[in-house]
Amino acid sequence: MRYDLAIIGGGPAGYTAAERAGKAGLKTIIFEQNNLGGVCLNEGCIPTKTLLYSAKTYANAINAQKYGVNAGNATFDTAKIVARKGKVVRKLVLGIKARLTAAGVETVTGRAYIAGAHTIECDGQTYECDRMMLCTGSDTFVPPIDGIGDVTYWTHRDVLDCKELPRTIIIVGGGVIGMELASYLCTMGTGVTVIEMTGEILGNLDGEISAALRAEYAKRGITFMLDTRVTAVHEGGEGITVRYESGGAEGSATAEKLLMSVGRRPVTTGYGLENLGLATDSRHRIITDNHMMSSVPGIYVCGDLNGRSLLAHTAVREAEVAVSHMLGIDDQMSYAAIPGVVYTNPEVASVGLTAAEAGARGIECREVKVPMAYSGRFVAENEGANGICKVVISTDGHILGAHVMGNPASEIITLAGMAITLGLTAEQWAKTVFPHPTVAEIFREAIS
Amino acid sequence: MRYDLAIIGGGPAGYTAAERAGKAGLKTIIFEQNNLGGVCLNEGCIPTKTLLYSAKTYANAINAQKYGVNAGNATFDTAKIVARKGKVVRKLVLGIKARLTAAGVETVTGRAYIAGAHTIECDGQTYECDRMMLCTGSDTFVPPIDGIGDVTYWTHRDVLDCKELPRTIIIVGGGVIGMELASYLCTMGTGVTVIEMTGEILGNLDGEISAALRAEYAKRGITFMLDTRVTAVHEGGEGITVRYESGGAEGSATAEKLLMSVGRRPVTTGYGLENLGLATDSRHRIITDNHMMSSVPGIYVCGDLNGRSLLAHTAVREAEVAVSHMLGIDDQMSYAAIPGVVYTNPEVASVGLTAAEAGARGIECREVKVPMAYSGRFVAENEGANGICKVVISTDGHILGAHVMGNPASEIITLAGMAITLGLTAEQWAKTVFPHPTVAEIFREAIS
Repeated sequence: MRYDLAIIGGGPAGYTAAERAGKAGLKTIIFEQNNLGGVCLNEGCIPTKTLLYSAKTYANAINAQKYGVNAGNATFDTAKIVARKGKVVRKLVLGIKARLTAAGVETVTGRAYIAGAHTIECDGQTYECDRMMLCTGSDTFVPPIDGIGDVTYWTHRDVLDCKELPRTIIIVGGGVIGMELASYLCTMGTGVTVIEMTGEILGNLDGEISAALRAEYAKRGITFMLDTRVTAVHEGGEGITVRYESGGAEGSATAEKLLMSVGRRPVTTGYGLENLGLATDSRHRIITDNHMMSSVPGIYVCGDLNGRSLLAHTAVREAEVAVSHMLGIDDQMSYAAIPGVVYTNPEVASVGLTAAEAGARGIECREVKVPMAYSGRFVAENEGANGICKVVISTDGHILGAHVMGNPASEIITLAGMAITLGLTAEQWAKTVFPHPTVAEIFREAIS
Repeated sequence: MRYDLAIIGGGPAGYTAAERAGKAGLKTIIFEQNNLGGVCLNEGCIPTKTLLYSAKTYANAINAQKYGVNAGNATFDTAKIVARKGKVVRKLVLGIKARLTAAGVETVTGRAYIAGAHTIECDGQTYECDRMMLCTGSDTFVPPIDGIGDVTYWTHRDVLDCKELPRTIIIVGGGVIGMELASYLCTMGTGVTVIEMTGEILGNLDGEISAALRAEYAKRGITFMLDTRVTAVHEGGEGITVRYESGGAEGSATAEKLLMSVGRRPVTTGYGLENLGLATDSRHRIITDNHMMSSVPGIYVCGDLNGRSLLAHTAVREAEVAVSHMLGIDDQMSYAAIPGVVYTNPEVASVGLTAAEAGARGIECREVKVPMAYSGRFVAENEGANGICKVVISTDGHILGAHVMGNPASEIITLAGMAITLGLTAEQWAKTVFPHPTVAEIFREAIS
């Protein structure tokens, strides 16, 4: 059997490409060794958001008296929460299956092996293809800390399936995954310590917003240890002890569980990738052009595998661009307006450049900062909460970036993303009529 | 004293214009007989959203078991809810005052009277001005129903201040205000009957979405009587009885309270408007050009008073356009992408044309309809709920309208508003990267 397109990996890049290509009439096959949907749907974005929504529902009940409602004796049932998460994931996986079937895509459940640029083997079968899309995703990276092999540490997966939450936990890595799970566990009553190697949580987000979020969670009881490097771990009767050093001093902390959320790394081995001889850059990332094609014509590399952004929505867009290229449709990938969201409560969302990043690139700009309380709806729905909205505007008036802390930052950030993608000036953007009262209006407050 | 600009009415149009003009260096005075903020802030948008958020908090607690959380025995305290509403309003009114002061605007609390195109009188003082902006807003319209003068009917104001909710209520008028208050009262346990003269609630919104929202609230216990005209009302021992006729048959219904929410009408009398001799159209609406200037040079008319849209955000944009004109900045008013939101739960939001409206204008188009369940986040956060997203696209690919039922429709509708305002095609819009998982992604599902 010969296919127009063979896709390895059924995550957001893979299923998006498969549906598009299939709909457009390309004879398409997709290989996935586990469930369709990839990490994102099965053990990432969707399950965390499902758990976080249960946590939010619980927190809203506990804090309902702020709004004249008494539900302070609310309780929760972790087993039910986890069961519901499973149901949500299954429903969405079935949805993807149905859409691929409707698009005429052939799905193979199995481990694909690349025998050559036009040949894939899977479970003893050989499949020939004109083009290939590789989107095998990424996996949790656990650094080689002294003793790590001898302790039963958790990764995000264990939290997602945990029906009896630990009393205490140490989370190593204060990035997005670490903070989302810290938020979940802290809300549910687990004592959380976050150890972060750098000087601030949430990596390259706007520093002031990261610090504000950290202060909020510190108030809720999370212990943050910044500029702290874990040197060793060991397991004993009282749980897991983490040894660390910070500013020359050494110390240790012990908790019932240890969660490793330092980062993720592209999955590059075990499926014959080496047989393609794709060119890589100095950081060992596979080089792609702006149509997502690798150095080998007809071989496209999308999603976490190419190491560019490690976000599901980047993968989706990359897949669209790649399929457009296959179909001869004019399109190209841009990373200028990829939003990043942290689904804590409050949410943090960001798109484009921070003022610091713009400065580092020599772009003259100003940063407009307004409190979220400038939005009447934010005040109506966020009693006692603070929030920040920053918009970075170049001296010639163009929108360069936006950075928001406050619900529902995730849902409104795309407005700024559109402004950046379309190259709008603040003046042009401000001609949009935003419904009143909405939290989204905060952008108008900032730019007009 | 002579002013560059005198503004009558301190609602969204008035305070927006005052702040802009003041900041730009125009010597500006604003007259408001009540509180700054107008109906919107003091007895409209903001107070309803505050009450509705308390109702949502209560409903979320009651229904929390869907998410593995037990808060089903939640109760509420209407007096506290109403007190909080007052606090929110006061905070925002103070915010507007502070911003006008910072912009150097002079504020007069009193009833202004227009003596001529350049002269305003208020409390015995005379104020001269080069330009005038009129934005006196609108007031509740109560039709001359037989007996209406003899019953103690409610308007929206009474609901907003009600500390002991009625057991039953009849709401005459199933428009936005009627439905938002119906939603609030129904959630809090009041038995609600909505009587609507036309064949569907929510007037000119997409008919399928209005019907779906109605079905949802019917399921929750609201009785809807469509195509029903109220012929008489009278008050007796058991409450207020409403007589009606529908399809030739007559009937009556009785409830503890009667809420009149048939509509609103511009406030055109009592402040000397007649002294200006402004030209009006066949529907008695003051004619304005696309800079919001009336037939008398230098007299601008913004907000509900001009009868164009009766929405706070329209007023804000009109005020911006008017001040731009005064300052010689190129800008003009467009009503093509004014969003409309109904803050029920689920929310409904709409912008641009429905397929029916496009058809009536002879514009060839297609309507793409997707269930909100195509958004993973919607599924994660809306257990058991349905939702609809429709995007109307012209045959040459341009976005003409979008119509959404499902939370948070209000916050995401502006994405479609931007697409319409900027004249984007679906293909152009789809190049925006939407963060995953968000409800906003539903637009990508519809257009790509």
